[in-house]
Amino acid sequence: MSLQVGVIGTGMIGQDHIRRLTRVLSGVSVVAVSDIDRNRAADAAPEGAEVFAEAGDLIRSDKVQAVVICSWGPAHEAQLLDCIAAGKPVFCEKPMVTSEAAALKVMEAEVAFGRRLVQVGFMRRFDADYRRLKAVIDGGTLGAPLMYHSTHRNASVPEGLYTSEMPLNDTLVHDADVTRWLLDDEIAGVEVRVPRRSTRGKDLRDPVVVLLHMASGALVDVEISVNIAYGYDIRGEVSCEMGVAALPNRPATVISDRHGIRQAIPEDWRERFIEAYDQEFREWIVAAGQGTATGPSTWDGYAATLVADAALRAVESGQTETVAMRDKPDLYARPVAAVA
Amino acid sequence: MSLQVGVIGTGMIGQDHIRRLTRVLSGVSVVAVSDIDRNRAADAAPEGAEVFAEAGDLIRSDKVQAVVICSWGPAHEAQLLDCIAAGKPVFCEKPMVTSEAAALKVMEAEVAFGRRLVQVGFMRRFDADYRRLKAVIDGGTLGAPLMYHSTHRNASVPEGLYTSEMPLNDTLVHDADVTRWLLDDEIAGVEVRVPRRSTRGKDLRDPVVVLLHMASGALVDVEISVNIAYGYDIRGEVSCEMGVAALPNRPATVISDRHGIRQAIPEDWRERFIEAYDQEFREWIVAAGQGTATGPSTWDGYAATLVADAALRAVESGQTETVAMRDKPDLYARPVAAVA
Amino acid sequence: MSLQVGVIGTGMIGQDHIRRLTRVLSGVSVVAVSDIDRNRAADAAPEGAEVFAEAGDLIRSDKVQAVVICSWGPAHEAQLLDCIAAGKPVFCEKPMVTSEAAALKVMEAEVAFGRRLVQVGFMRRFDADYRRLKAVIDGGTLGAPLMYHSTHRNASVPEGLYTSEMPLNDTLVHDADVTRWLLDDEIAGVEVRVPRRSTRGKDLRDPVVVLLHMASGALVDVEISVNIAYGYDIRGEVSCEMGVAALPNRPATVISDRHGIRQAIPEDWRERFIEAYDQEFREWIVAAGQGTATGPSTWDGYAATLVADAALRAVESGQTETVAMRDKPDLYARPVAAVA
Amino acid sequence: MSLQVGVIGTGMIGQDHIRRLTRVLSGVSVVAVSDIDRNRAADAAPEGAEVFAEAGDLIRSDKVQAVVICSWGPAHEAQLLDCIAAGKPVFCEKPMVTSEAAALKVMEAEVAFGRRLVQVGFMRRFDADYRRLKAVIDGGTLGAPLMYHSTHRNASVPEGLYTSEMPLNDTLVHDADVTRWLLDDEIAGVEVRVPRRSTRGKDLRDPVVVLLHMASGALVDVEISVNIAYGYDIRGEVSCEMGVAALPNRPATVISDRHGIRQAIPEDWRERFIEAYDQEFREWIVAAGQGTATGPSTWDGYAATLVADAALRAVESGQTETVAMRDKPDLYARPVAAVA
Repeated sequence: MSLQVGVIGTGMIGQDHIRRLTRVLSGVSVVAVSDIDRNRAADAAPEGAEVFAEAGDLIRSDKVQAVVICSWGPAHEAQLLDCIAAGKPVFCEKPMVTSEAAALKVMEAEVAFGRRLVQVGFMRRFDADYRRLKAVIDGGTLGAPLMYHSTHRNASVPEGLYTSEMPLNDTLVHDADVTRWLLDDEIAGVEVRVPRRSTRGKDLRDPVVVLLHMASGALVDVEISVNIAYGYDIRGEVSCEMGVAALPNRPATVISDRHGIRQAIPEDWRERFIEAYDQEFREWIVAAGQGTATGPSTWDGYAATLVADAALRAVESGQTETVAMRDKPDLYARPVAAVA
Repeated sequence: MSLQVGVIGTGMIGQDHIRRLTRVLSGVSVVAVSDIDRNRAADAAPEGAEVFAEAGDLIRSDKVQAVVICSWGPAHEAQLLDCIAAGKPVFCEKPMVTSEAAALKVMEAEVAFGRRLVQVGFMRRFDADYRRLKAVIDGGTLGAPLMYHSTHRNASVPEGLYTSEMPLNDTLVHDADVTRWLLDDEIAGVEVRVPRRSTRGKDLRDPVVVLLHMASGALVDVEISVNIAYGYDIRGEVSCEMGVAALPNRPATVISDRHGIRQAIPEDWRERFIEAYDQEFREWIVAAGQGTATGPSTWDGYAATLVADAALRAVESGQTETVAMRDKPDLYARPVAAVA
Repeated sequence: MSLQVGVIGTGMIGQDHIRRLTRVLSGVSVVAVSDIDRNRAADAAPEGAEVFAEAGDLIRSDKVQAVVICSWGPAHEAQLLDCIAAGKPVFCEKPMVTSEAAALKVMEAEVAFGRRLVQVGFMRRFDADYRRLKAVIDGGTLGAPLMYHSTHRNASVPEGLYTSEMPLNDTLVHDADVTRWLLDDEIAGVEVRVPRRSTRGKDLRDPVVVLLHMASGALVDVEISVNIAYGYDIRGEVSCEMGVAALPNRPATVISDRHGIRQAIPEDWRERFIEAYDQEFREWIVAAGQGTATGPSTWDGYAATLVADAALRAVESGQTETVAMRDKPDLYARPVAAVA
Repeated sequence: MSLQVGVIGTGMIGQDHIRRLTRVLSGVSVVAVSDIDRNRAADAAPEGAEVFAEAGDLIRSDKVQAVVICSWGPAHEAQLLDCIAAGKPVFCEKPMVTSEAAALKVMEAEVAFGRRLVQVGFMRRFDADYRRLKAVIDGGTLGAPLMYHSTHRNASVPEGLYTSEMPLNDTLVHDADVTRWLLDDEIAGVEVRVPRRSTRGKDLRDPVVVLLHMASGALVDVEISVNIAYGYDIRGEVSCEMGVAALPNRPATVISDRHGIRQAIPEDWRERFIEAYDQEFREWIVAAGQGTATGPSTWDGYAATLVADAALRAVESGQTETVAMRDKPDLYARPVAAVA
């Protein structure tokens, strides 16, 4: 039986997820949509889907079995609480919420409900390259991971719209989340260093280098360059006691011509992570069909919020800013077994 | 609306396609199955699917809109003719048929019907690496393709079951088909050379080197090694007038350890081409839903039959064996536009 | 005419340089040797070379035109001063000297002499890979360098002999020197972070991560792992405004076998840098034959001393330790043109 | 003591070898030069070297201990015979001689003399990449070599001067020689296939594909493209029973920019093989100093002559042309141990 899904927020990312749910993946139907712009919702609605004026009504509708939230970040808290109140599995795009207090409130509601319902949109965990990398680390033959070198490069960001806080509260969260997952470790402290500024970004603080101090003592450095012109280049290398494991180059055609022997680099995150987005939803559909959630949890969304806050403090203080997490509820004690 | 599919042949590959059609892809339902072993068919049938004793009855059933043929090669001819008679789109695993006469008969029936109905299972054309390679060649910046170096290596083949004819009539067809497609060219002649034999395969004629003489004059060499122990390694490099383009290494984790800096190699064709199989059916579903077929055609299945025959003659003669194709029907004159 | 060289210090590295000067390179003869162990000097002396009991006598000998210092670090100051007093070109293995005061004294003597005489043994500047990397950066097409990621991994270090200070005062100097040269920049500050410790090195502080703050604002991170088991792996990547340039993998045979597709990694620094050592002396011979020196200078040796001192302070303080260099004498204002 | 060398032929390659012998390598002096153009010889002569009008006089001069022949191919036979008559070690650029009869005559003279004196200029055997590749094959862990894929690409050849015979009698000899050496095998037969012609070379027969049938049964395919625009690209891959070993990419800087992630390709053979030429002479000097020769022998020069002849016949006949070698004299029975 097909999972009946309602989608809240029908902007660019919402429309892309509707396409994915209706044209790419099996076992799912989009039966309801909602947006603050009712016309946009109507345009995005697949045939037969009901358009709701209020997100809350969509969430509570009997025809909706599971919810996908693609609305504006500040709206997430109320929508997540509604989903939990209704006992419905929900996929929530990042940021899960925009404050520590909100994250704790959602977490408490889910813990009180007693079963995981929330999956947060950290798609890198579903990328085949990252998964193979994690499998190597978890295999243990290289010994314990001691350092992780993460590189996050964007060709460009929209001038004016992308501010100097965003490398730290918007871009960094992907590196932070995938680090926690890869190393099976928590972030205990954050430092930020600001190198010589790129002249391509005017007044933008770009690049930045972030150091993440993990609870185990492992040290992570993250290069974030958001205007590097040549492409969207995501790299990661784990340095262990007896060896090193790294993400491979992307599988582009090997061309030998007057520019050398070369392989193309993705232009943007859509090209780089399109399969990861598909897989993210593939697994969500299976878990949601069972009334629960797997993958990145409310706990992970909470961690991301704390790390972004700490990074913003660290750029001001120049010091190591502590990330103080509450005790981990049993609900998040160990990952729900991955869905095959 | 979902495409109602009937599957004929529920052996290993048939079962895998049923899994793909029911659990991976959207817009399709398996409503009927058939197998010469009725129990096997019943076991493989998804919930609600009807089990037919006779393939012909499945093909003609009103509930079946399109057919997937995974039966034994010698059975394909009659089943394809039945599908064409019923005007139903059909996906047929390779070999399309087992003789030139049969290929011509199917082609004549389809031409008489007046619309493409048959897609043959050459999955490499749907592989992302091959598609990017073709895009580079077609882009024309490297000039005309003059040579193609194709490498086809299996870790091992089942002793006793895999005979010395099979590198030429079973394995080579993939290289031959993908060559025709990559270079947009026909094979005009075939030579076979037999190197020093591998001691791993006992009496097996392994490896073999095949030269394909293309109609344009381009020359193709194919290494086929079917017992090379280390993995399933598919490579391809097009040498053009002003440059060279090649398939990349597979995107495995880059590990630096005591074995060097290294990347894993796929174990077998399932691992290597799993996404290509998914994509092959994704496109078939769309075309079949429109009552037609795209991708590898009856013409391509016919070409494969002729090339395999020529290769078997060439290994005996030591000479260049001509591949004499009939005139190309207009129906196959140019590819139907790829389905997005 | 052949350059007449005297070698001081005939331990392992001294013997290797004697081999290089007598058997590999042209235009040079070893005419004198000296060592605190006179027997070792006699054993190492090539045919016809005079063995001196005192380094000072060797330096002042009329038959010696240029000097190679491979003695114990603390002996370098006096020997360098003797060479300058004698107006003789001298190649000095690292560390140039062991204190800032000594570095300044040697510098003042050389400045007073009025011509460069001292070349310090930072061989990476002569490595073909590093030179090509520098050429790309200097070419300017990638824009200004903003970050440099340096990786320095040893398979193992001698237990007991290699102490926790050595990654910072012995190993780091190579990364620090090559950074100053690659970026054409000075180091203004040093931070050290100590990740989770490797269990392979017992009580050794290993690995360490060093941040170098360059005068231009460029930020450099250095991973130093000295017990990483798998090989001697030196990497470097410069992240610029519009692109990135990195050292390539070493040119080892590409083997595809059951361990994957792989290339060997050098075992140690001898294997990695043997050609760089040859080239280092090739250029020294030419400059010394003209009565002067090129390549790494007294200024560079002085910088290395300050950086090592700052790194040792930084590991204690946890803060950024400033590197305060004196004004740069005109003698070192710009590199002497490289010898072709 | 320095080896006293006379150089015959002071054209481009002769001048380059004089530079190498006087400015790069140790243990050798150029004491005599000769050229059909006496002025050119005088210009090329290093300080103190005697200029001879007649090559024979140079060879017989008491001051000359060993000879380097860089004259025109047709002059080699007489000059080699003179060297052997004088009992002097001789390095001879390729082609050793220009006919089978001449090769046999030189071989008989050397065999009669009873000690190897001749080293032929096949420099690839001294290239570090090829040597590592051979070490892997000889190590035996991959099993017997069954196929070798050799690729020989030039960016361009001088129009008008480079004729359609030259890919087969001038370019192919390098691939043929290195194949014999890598596989420790003889060439028993040669086939040539001519693909679609490149439009870049006007009437030039380019590219060509050559199949070499080795005595062991191993099969070798060689792509020769001499006008491929993008660079000088030499590749080689040995396909064995249990794995594959290949030459690596050249160690160029890895640049990520708008052209992709890329490495430069050498422009020409000088750039690609400069170190191999140095090493070739380094080893020759040692052997010549001992009154003999190592490396590629008269036997290898003879084989090259036969293969080139067979290739020219094969392009006409379209058939496999046999390479019939005389019995191998004991003098060439096994390689003289490589000089360290």
